[in-house]
Parts: sequence; structure tokens; C-alpha cells
Amino acid sequence: MTMRKICFIIYVFLSAPFIHAEDGYRLWLRYDRIDDPVLLQQYRSQINSINFQGSSPTLTVAKKELLDGLQGLLGKKIIETGSRQNNSIIISKRFPGQSGITVHYDALGNDGFTIFTLDSKKHVTVITANGDAGILYGIFHFLRMMQTHQAISNLRLTSTPRIQNRILDHWDNLNRTVERGYAGASIWNWHLLPGYIDKRYIDYARANASIGINGTVLTNVNANALVLTKDYLLKVKALADVFRNYNIKVYLTARFSAPIDIGGLKTADPLDPAVQNWWNKKVDEIYSYIPDFGGFLVKANSEGQPGPQTYERTHADGANMLADALAPHHGIVMWRAFVYDVRPQKSSENFDSLKMDPSAPTITSADRFKLAYDEFKPLDGKFRKNVVIQVKNGPIDFQPREPLSPLFGSMPKTPLVPEFQITQEYLGQATNLVYEGPLFKECLDADTYGKGKGSTVAKVIDGSLENYSITGIAGVSNIGNERNWTGHPFGQANWYAFGRLAWDYDLSSSQIVDEWARQTFTNDPHVVDAVKKIMLSSREAVVNYMTPLGLHHIMGTGHHYGPAPWVNNAGRPDWNPVYYHRADSVGIGFDRTVTGSNALSQYAVEVRLQWEDLKNCDEKYLLWFHHVPWRYKTRSGRILWDELCYKYYSGVDTVRWMQRIWDGLKAYLDTERFEQVKMLLAIQEKEAVWWRNACLLYFQTFSKLPIPANYERPDHDLEYYKALKFPYAPGIGGNL
Amino acid sequence: MTMRKICFIIYVFLSAPFIHAEDGYRLWLRYDRIDDPVLLQQYRSQINSINFQGSSPTLTVAKKELLDGLQGLLGKKIIETGSRQNNSIIISKRFPGQSGITVHYDALGNDGFTIFTLDSKKHVTVITANGDAGILYGIFHFLRMMQTHQAISNLRLTSTPRIQNRILDHWDNLNRTVERGYAGASIWNWHLLPGYIDKRYIDYARANASIGINGTVLTNVNANALVLTKDYLLKVKALADVFRNYNIKVYLTARFSAPIDIGGLKTADPLDPAVQNWWNKKVDEIYSYIPDFGGFLVKANSEGQPGPQTYERTHADGANMLADALAPHHGIVMWRAFVYDVRPQKSSENFDSLKMDPSAPTITSADRFKLAYDEFKPLDGKFRKNVVIQVKNGPIDFQPREPLSPLFGSMPKTPLVPEFQITQEYLGQATNLVYEGPLFKECLDADTYGKGKGSTVAKVIDGSLENYSITGIAGVSNIGNERNWTGHPFGQANWYAFGRLAWDYDLSSSQIVDEWARQTFTNDPHVVDAVKKIMLSSREAVVNYMTPLGLHHIMGTGHHYGPAPWVNNAGRPDWNPVYYHRADSVGIGFDRTVTGSNALSQYAVEVRLQWEDLKNCDEKYLLWFHHVPWRYKTRSGRILWDELCYKYYSGVDTVRWMQRIWDGLKAYLDTERFEQVKMLLAIQEKEAVWWRNACLLYFQTFSKLPIPANYERPDHDLEYYKALKFPYAPGIGGNL
Repeated sequence: MTMRKICFIIYVFLSAPFIHAEDGYRLWLRYDRIDDPVLLQQYRSQINSINFQGSSPTLTVAKKELLDGLQGLLGKKIIETGSRQNNSIIISKRFPGQSGITVHYDALGNDGFTIFTLDSKKHVTVITANGDAGILYGIFHFLRMMQTHQAISNLRLTSTPRIQNRILDHWDNLNRTVERGYAGASIWNWHLLPGYIDKRYIDYARANASIGINGTVLTNVNANALVLTKDYLLKVKALADVFRNYNIKVYLTARFSAPIDIGGLKTADPLDPAVQNWWNKKVDEIYSYIPDFGGFLVKANSEGQPGPQTYERTHADGANMLADALAPHHGIVMWRAFVYDVRPQKSSENFDSLKMDPSAPTITSADRFKLAYDEFKPLDGKFRKNVVIQVKNGPIDFQPREPLSPLFGSMPKTPLVPEFQITQEYLGQATNLVYEGPLFKECLDADTYGKGKGSTVAKVIDGSLENYSITGIAGVSNIGNERNWTGHPFGQANWYAFGRLAWDYDLSSSQIVDEWARQTFTNDPHVVDAVKKIMLSSREAVVNYMTPLGLHHIMGTGHHYGPAPWVNNAGRPDWNPVYYHRADSVGIGFDRTVTGSNALSQYAVEVRLQWEDLKNCDEKYLLWFHHVPWRYKTRSGRILWDELCYKYYSGVDTVRWMQRIWDGLKAYLDTERFEQVKMLLAIQEKEAVWWRNACLLYFQTFSKLPIPANYERPDHDLEYYKALKFPYAPGIGGNL
Repeated sequence: MTMRKICFIIYVFLSAPFIHAEDGYRLWLRYDRIDDPVLLQQYRSQINSINFQGSSPTLTVAKKELLDGLQGLLGKKIIETGSRQNNSIIISKRFPGQSGITVHYDALGNDGFTIFTLDSKKHVTVITANGDAGILYGIFHFLRMMQTHQAISNLRLTSTPRIQNRILDHWDNLNRTVERGYAGASIWNWHLLPGYIDKRYIDYARANASIGINGTVLTNVNANALVLTKDYLLKVKALADVFRNYNIKVYLTARFSAPIDIGGLKTADPLDPAVQNWWNKKVDEIYSYIPDFGGFLVKANSEGQPGPQTYERTHADGANMLADALAPHHGIVMWRAFVYDVRPQKSSENFDSLKMDPSAPTITSADRFKLAYDEFKPLDGKFRKNVVIQVKNGPIDFQPREPLSPLFGSMPKTPLVPEFQITQEYLGQATNLVYEGPLFKECLDADTYGKGKGSTVAKVIDGSLENYSITGIAGVSNIGNERNWTGHPFGQANWYAFGRLAWDYDLSSSQIVDEWARQTFTNDPHVVDAVKKIMLSSREAVVNYMTPLGLHHIMGTGHHYGPAPWVNNAGRPDWNPVYYHRADSVGIGFDRTVTGSNALSQYAVEVRLQWEDLKNCDEKYLLWFHHVPWRYKTRSGRILWDELCYKYYSGVDTVRWMQRIWDGLKAYLDTERFEQVKMLLAIQEKEAVWWRNACLLYFQTFSKLPIPANYERPDHDLEYYKALKFPYAPGIGGNL
């Protein structure tokens, strides 16, 4: 950036008021006065007072939220009355009044709510539910309606969540670094807990409650047993005491070796009675501090974490031991299926035997794609009732695009919980604007065919297909202690989208953007439309400039920042990009058909058939499942190499188009956020060009084909890109 | 904290408005409307417009600050006019108008300013200076006068800084951790620079400029050569481009081995022509990006850092090599005197020979107190003109109380720069309210007797004693990316006090508190008085509950959190608390008289004499200089042991008294900051009790005397305190 440019940025920042900058801290809970005068007048005439029944801790914070929200949005004092008044909102559990309207409380469950107009002439609205949680969610819903300028007369709406446990997973370490975190330090200040309650904890809870999130795993899946010691449990208790008011349960990650690490035992064998006893007592202790503790999330025998296999026991043995300790307290175990140790007795073939082109790097390993399925499918039905298996989207990791995991639809006797990654480990981290709504939806809408057509992942996980008694959904948090929580202002949208989809996966990506943009920026349709255009294009853009046509896992080693398709010396074969793209003089892509790893055989036959034949395979997944010759003619008529070039260049073009659209919003937005996003989009454009150039120059060494003449030339050679080093890239090794 | 208590805190937090919380981000630059209606009316009638001459980058931001400040404080639009008007402020360099007032521009220098009333009837005020910087500082001064409700009529004031280079040292690492940082991550987001300019950089510059700080060392003294590579220098340049507008120069720490680390050389020998050439070229490169680069800060041959002694060269050889590279560009070298390697040929005696009580732990090392002096005193006069020696306050480290360093007053031919530690490494870190004004003043006011009575440290460092051509003062920053910058809201006061004293060391601690409290909280005298009482007692309190009567360096090893006087197994003898307190069956304290290490001999005779005789020695420094028997009768009439108990208990009592005073402010302060400080004071009280109990129980094992009966009993035994472990205490090893 030139000095002139920086001076310019200073001046434009300074043109914003110093007093109350738009620093993003308020997220989507802004409650500024309605800026449409007609609508403001209308709302004001409809609401003078509230009549609020009940005074539990949750209802107290809910009432406060409603009063503050209404007073902010309407710019007037709202009175609390003890009796029914005209122009009022009545908040009451199991509303006892004569309304002429039947509320089906049985269908509302614990969290659902109904909002209805009791008297449209006198402007009396009722928010009702079975319990405190439903009231809390109903209030946030009502406020959102006003924030997004919806009509609030003649209401008759009911909303219940599709999934019971809607959970954020924090990969936060006890030293306040965050694995794959790109927004500063962890918001959990363990050192100051339990004595110091940061106001941020309350605002975190408010934000989660406003979108229906009702659980939080505080600690990293790469776990530290210390969090299970008394000192730390008292800190956890202090957070739980805050979050309980917002209907949010606290969970912890359980390090499987904790009985050894902090318990003084010699073993953590799950079948050892002393180990079982240790966990039983530990769990009792936890519940003595936190009576509504949610349970454990466990990463076992994966990437160096200890687990039951260390003792020749199965994942079921390990999960069941913890489940038995938690069951008396109604806690659950969320056991991760993200394992990819090669277990010779289980993996069905080895890649040594695959015929590879002599120009390709040597690869020896089973297909990592298949290992979770191989490990867990045989265990279906062997888990306790309070165990759920948490399955990453997708089968490899959280790539820009993956096909669905073959586990969905394959474990009818075991509740499966999908794990989405909100933090953008593989999606440009905190500098790239990538809206993940379409990514989440792609997975949720994917058909497993587990019980025939229409057996979508959503229907698997909401329990409707298999009648699960526990349902859940998890998102790996993108939250840190930066002023705006997520680093990139648009990162907030991914937190928001996760919560909203966890509540109702039938919401469209576009509806969610609409809500979020209105609450976060403005209801001005010019802005909403532009933001929607940008956001809805952004995921396909990142796929195109990073990993088009089914490429995957070709990013920098370790920090995962930037492209590095050439890496072939990582600690395991399946940590190498070359393992995944398999480019050679013949072509590119991972043959997972019967002629290759046959990973496709793990899917239902209908799924397999749609991808197995190169000719029919959706080109989104082409190189996920096929090793395709460079001159293979794709559906566009272009040969594969040209299509690859086309995709990479169009990814960059989309980012530039996003920049132009954003620039057009200058007059409509506050200076601070406008400039912030503008700078980040400029970085994103540079990074997209970097990805495109580095990948194409590298793949060109195999294809030996030219980048078509009509495209701009790479501005560096391949050696330049290969030489780039980023020792302090954030999110790994203590880097922030 | 009980659940009830946490619920309570949630409710009180929620009673504050959501919209614009008092999150502390605005520091002392608040510009809220004057809340005294009479004064507001008066100010309003005096100021309608400004007449601002000049449009350089610095003047542009200064004008913006003035307009925003006035408009905020007065709650009305201020007009900018091109001609002189009634009720206006004229801002003009070397004011050319007929004023009847003579401004002595020659005495103002670069940074000084004059503010005077040109016409008291027509309310015309002039802010003038020689250049942009003076105008900037004059504007901040004028705004401060209004923020603190001072009269702005009949003005005739001039202010010039006593010291040229007023510098913050950031111990910030390239991975965004901060050594001895207790306020989250580094505010420098290296990964996003240079493309992303965080608004925080601008607000940081504004805050510094408002108190006269004009330099910032961006990187840790435990240095990383990578910051000197082109990629990082372009990031540094982006920051320099921001800070230049606020008259702030950027400095870097230079890792002495950089020619090897990043230059590909085999040596970093300062007399090697290839090494000299490398540094010359590197410095030229830096100035090609940053024409006003300030220079280097260097920690060499200290605590593992490389340095010239690695090559059998002196500190002067090392410093002069860098100085020669910087001289053509007018850059300076700040070379730290914080060295304590035992160099047998130089240290005058060894403690092996000291007769120690058999009950005392074995100690073998020279007196670390003496090593900096031993090393640097002989080099006086051997440094280039653009080298300054940066001397810690005090001779050991940044303890709650240290006597002055004997280097002050002993190096007449070498400009000395004092290094204060604003971050509270040894002062309770971010949980203890400790106002450092009195600590800084104690050092600045200390008499070195270098040129006879009145040769204070302040007069040494401002150059008035020895006519230095370069003067400077450095403070180790307490800033991080927490919303309120410093973690503890009162940490802001230490940043503020450092800047104000760097500008004018004659300001009293009390005056500075007065200013800061009015700007930060309110001008309500009830609050100002109470805050002043708390703050002015706080430093003596921390001395008492941590290290009374001259005890020092008895904190926990590594993280320096909490008491650990028992530690005797650290990596070097002089890292052990037992090395410093030397408690044994006879008594306690470090004999630094002629019968001991004779460190006192390093001072001027007048200084030595005031401390050498046990009977006359100020008891503040008693155990710094004497090994004193347990039953020695102190001036209070109490024996030493009882006096030690008295001091420890009174330290805790003061904290409790601070809590009571703070509680009385509830009705006068915003909820958010009131509750925040209240929680932190409760933690401070716990930690003070912990220090007191742990230290007394431990020292009691030597004194064998009882804690007097009228005191509350320790609530744990010594073993409990010794067993406490804090693996994730912040500020070290990547912990945040």
C-alpha cells in the first residue's frame, strides 16, 4: 500500500465520528432506531408497553433484551405493565388468556415459541412458549422481525428448532491461543476466571441465544486434561453460570489420557475398573459444580490424541465408558469420527498397488477418504444411547468443496452429528470474504439415499429418518477477541448462518443473508441486494480460485495458508497435496472408483452411480473421484486443462467483480466498515491471484499445455511461489 | 464467585445500555459533552469557529482532532473560517498576527507550543508553534484543558518537552504474542499488514500524540531478525506511514546475529567489514522505505541474545557498528545496559567467598546488581554520538521498588535513557490496580550526586547536567488488543503517566492522576478525589504486600506471577528468589555493603553514605543493602520480624481500603467500568493475601517467630502455597 493510500485511509477513518465507531462489536444485535420514518411511526403506534410474566434468571435477561431492543429500535420509553393494555406485547409461558387461538404447546417442545396477534385493532401481541428458553428465542425472533422491517401486525407464527443440540465448538487452548483461529486470542480469559466476568461472555451468550445456539464446547479437541482439574472446573462453572441464563449448556473436551495426566493412574484403558471409577468420580465432581453440564466432545486416536485404541479397545469401548459416567446426569458424549490412522487389519487395500504414472510423486497410503467409514461403520449399534458420532463435512477435512461423508446414511443405529467448520481454515482464513451458507446447505441437502431418495443429510441428523433420541449439529467457532469478534466483518455472517441453519435447515442461504445484512448494515434495498450478490457468489469464487473441479487439500502445509500443490514431503503421505491431486503426465485427480481406491463403494448405490462414471459425474466433483486426462473434453467443450484455467481465472474475476460491487456501496455505508472490507477484498484479490498462478504454473509442469492466450499472465514464476514462507501465519503453533 | 453473584453481575451489566458500552476503548480521549451546564454555556459562548492555517498531513489530522473534540465537548457545530473571527481559535505556525505578545519561538523547539488569548473580550485564542508537531501537541493540550474543565480565557502558556525522544517499547513478537503482555495479543497484526490498516493503529497514534509520545519500538528486545527482511519492512513501513502523521517515529529491535540469520554471512562480528557492509546496506534499505526511521533498540549478550561479546568485542564495538550505519540517516542506537553475564575478568568478587549462615541455601554468583555497571562504566566515552545507553529502573529489574541504578550519574560522556516498565510484570500484572506515577517519579527525582547535590536522574537524562545532544526516555508498553487496550482499566493511567512525565517530569503524580481521572471518568470532585486516593496509595500497597522493606525478586519463576520466595532451583543462581532475600536463621536481606557484595561502592559517595549504615538507611531500602537480624529493632520500635508482618498486613489492609473507597463510587460511575474494577479489586485482594501469607509463612521457617496475635491467620499452610502451579499464566511462553 502506498503512503498516499495510507494517508487517505487515515483521513477517511477520521471522517467517521470518534465517539462511537462502527467497530463491529455489536454484531447483528444493533437495535439502532428504525431509519424508515413511516415504519417507525407505525411500529411506535403499535407498541407502548410490555406485560411480562415471570422472573426466572432467563426471563429476566429476556425481558431486559426486549426492553432494550424495543427502546432502541423505537427510540422511546417502553413501559412495563402488570395488566393487559392496548398497544402492547404480552410475554407469557403457556398463555392462559382467552385468545380464540389454539397454541399447540405439545409441538413447541422446550425451545419452540409462538407469536400471535391477540387483538389486531388494539395492537396486542402475544409471545408464548412452554418454558423460559422458548420465550427467550421468541423475543429474539420478534426483535429480528423489527430489525428487518417486517410487519408485526396480524401475526400467527410458530417456530421450533429442527435439531436439539446446536453447538459451537471452540478450538481454544488454555493459554488463549486458538487452533485455526484468525481473530486474535481466545475470548476465554482462563487466567482471570472465575473472579473476573468479562462483559464479552454475556454478549457472546446474547449473540448465540439470538440465533438459537444452545451449547458451547469451550476447549480444543486437541485436548488438555488440565481443564478437568478443580481449579479449571471452577472457571468453567463461572462461564456456565453466565451462559445458563441464555439457555446455553457448557461442554468440555475430554482428553482420553486424563486418568494418567491428572489422575495419577498408570493406564487410561476404558475397560479398567479403576479408569472407569476415575471418570465416574470426575464426572460427578463436574456436575457438583455445573448441574446442567452438557457432556464431553472427544477426539481420540487421531492426529496424536490418545484414545481407546492405545489399549486395543474400540472407539465404542472408549465412548461408552464416558457415556456411562455421564448417563446418570443426562450428559452426552460427542465422539469424533475424524480418524485416519491406517489400521492394516481394516483398510481394504493399499495404494502401493495402484499403478501410478512414473512422473508422479511416490505415494504410499490407503485412501484417507475411506478410513473414518472403515472405522465407524462396523461399530453402528454398539454405542450407548447417550453417544453421538460427530462427522466432519466432508470425508477429508473442511475443504472448500467436498462430497458428503459416506457415514451419513450408513449408521442407522447411531445418532450422527455433522461438524461444520465456521472458522475459515481452508477458506482464506480471516482475509477472504466467503459466505458459508451455501456450503452448509450443500451438505445438509445432499441425499444419502440411506432410506431411499430424499434421505438427505438434514433428515439423517434431525433424527426424522431413524428416530434418533438425540440430535445435534456442531460448528467450529470463528470467534476471537478482536473487537469485531471474527476478524473479517463478514465472518460474523458465518456464525449467524450456522446458528440459523441449526435451528431451521430449510432456510435458504439467500434468506439468511437477507436477515443478516439488514441487521448488520441497513435495510436499504440497494445495500441488501449488493451484499447478497457478493455473499452468494463468494463460496463458488473461493472454490474456483483455490480448488476447482474437485481438487482438494492442496494448501500450504501446517498453517494451511495459500497454495502449495507441490508439497510432497509432509510427515505422512496423506498430509501431502500431491497425494490428493495426483497430477502426472497423463492427467490429474484422485481415482476413487473401482479402478482406484473404490471409496465410492462406501456410498449408497444411488450416490455411487451419480459419480462413478466419468461421463455423468458432476464436474464439481470430477477430480475428487477420477484421474482425468489433460485433454479430456469437459461439458463446456474445453479440454480439462483449459477448463481448469477457465475456473481458476473466473475465481479471480469473481473477486474483482465483488470488489466493484462493494465499491459502489461507499455512499451507503459507514466509513469504518466500508474501508475495512475494501482493504480485505484487495487482500483477497491478491491471494486469489496467488492461488491461481501458483496452482496453474505447477499443474502446467505436468500438462505441458499453455495457459490460453486471452488470460493475463502469471506475474511470477513457479519458483517464486514455491519459495514463499509464512512462519507466523496465524492459527497454528501459537501464532495469532 | 457464587452463581448468585454472577447472575447479579449479569443483571448490572445488562442495566447499562447495549448500544454504546463503556468498554474503555476511547481511553482518555472521550470528548463527551461537558456535563457542567454553566461551564458548557461559558465554553460555548467562547468558541464558535476555528481559523486553521496549513494543510500538511499532520495538520490535517490535528485539525480533525480539534474539530471533533470541540464539537463533542461543546455539542455544537464548529465552523472553519478563513479569516479571524470573534469567539474563535486561530491555529497557526509562527503566528504572524499583531498580538502584542512576544512568542519565543526559538525556545519552543520542534515540539513545544504556545497558547495565548489574543483578545479576551472577543474571545480569540491562538495556538502556535514552530512546526506541525508543536501544533498537534498544542491542540491536544487545549482539548485536555477543556476535558478537565479548566478556564480557557486569559491564557498565556507555553509548554516544551524536557526530553527529545519519548518512546514506547513494545515487547511484541511477530506471532502476535507479547512478552510480559497481559492485555491479549499484540495490536500489530503482521499477517494482515501492509494491506490492512487497522483503525486501532490510528487510535494508538492519537493516544500517544495526545500525551507527547513520539517514538515506538515495534518489536521485542528478544529480537527476531525476520523483521528486517523486505516483506516485514514493508509492513513496518505501512505502520510508519500511519504514525508519521502523528509525529511518531518507528524503531525496530535489531537482532545482533541478523547478518547470519537472514544475511547468509558466517559471522556477525562487528569489526568484520562484510558484517559492517551488510548492516550499512540493510539500514539504507530501511530508510528507502521509511525516510524518518528512528533507529535500533538492541539487547545484546543478555539472557541468550547474541551480541558483540560472542566475538570477543565490546558493547561499544557492537553499538558503534550499528551507529555508523544509521548516522548518515540521522538514526540512533539505543543499546540496553541490562546485562548480567558473569564475566570473570570483570566482576570484582565472587559470592563463593561470602560467609553465609549454614541454614541458608547455597548461592554462588557475583552480585547481579553490579554487573551492568561493571560492564558499561568502563565504556563511557567510547560510544558514537548517535548511541544512547538504555538503563533499566532499577539495577536488578523492574521490581516494585528499587534504588536508582548506579549507572545514572556515572557515565557523563554517554547519553543515558531510563527504561521504565509500564506493563506490570512485577506489579500484579493485569489484575492489580497499581498506579506507577510515584514509581516513575521516585526514580526521576533520585539524586545521583553525579555533579553534586541536585544531580537527579531527571537532570541526567534530560541532558541538562552533561549537555547531551540526544535525550530519551523509554517505557515498556502495557498495550494489547483487548477492547480497553490494557486489560485493567487503570493500566491506561500508567501509559498516560509515562507519556506525561516524559514530556514534563516536574508534573506531580497527583496532578497526572487528576488529569487522567477527569478525562477518563468524570470531573465530579467526589470521583476525582476518591480515584486519587486509591491511585496514590496503590504503589506503596503493592510494595507492602509483595516486597516490603527492600525485599525484591521473590516472585514465581518464569511467569513472575505470585510469590515464590522459596525457589532455589532456577537455571542460574541469580534467577532464584533465595539469592535475593538470603533469609537464614540470623536474619534476612542482601548485604551490599563493604562486608558483602559492596555494590554500594558503585554509587557516588553521598548516595552510598545514605544507605551504607544500617542505622541511617531508609527502611524502604533496608533489605536491599543489609542482611538484618530478625530481632533488629526498626524505627517503629518493632523488631524486624514484627515490622515485616506489619508491612505485609498493612499492604493487604490498603487494598481492602481501596475496595471500600471504590464501592462508594457506585452511584457516580457507569456500571460497566464500576463492576469491572470491583471484580479486579477483589482479585487483587485475594492475591495480596496470597503474597502476604506465602511470604510470611516461608520467612517464618527462618525467623521462628510468631505472626503477632492481633493479625488474621493465614488460611493455608506453606505447603499449599508452594504447591500452586500456573502453567498458563500470561505473558510468557506464548500464553496470553
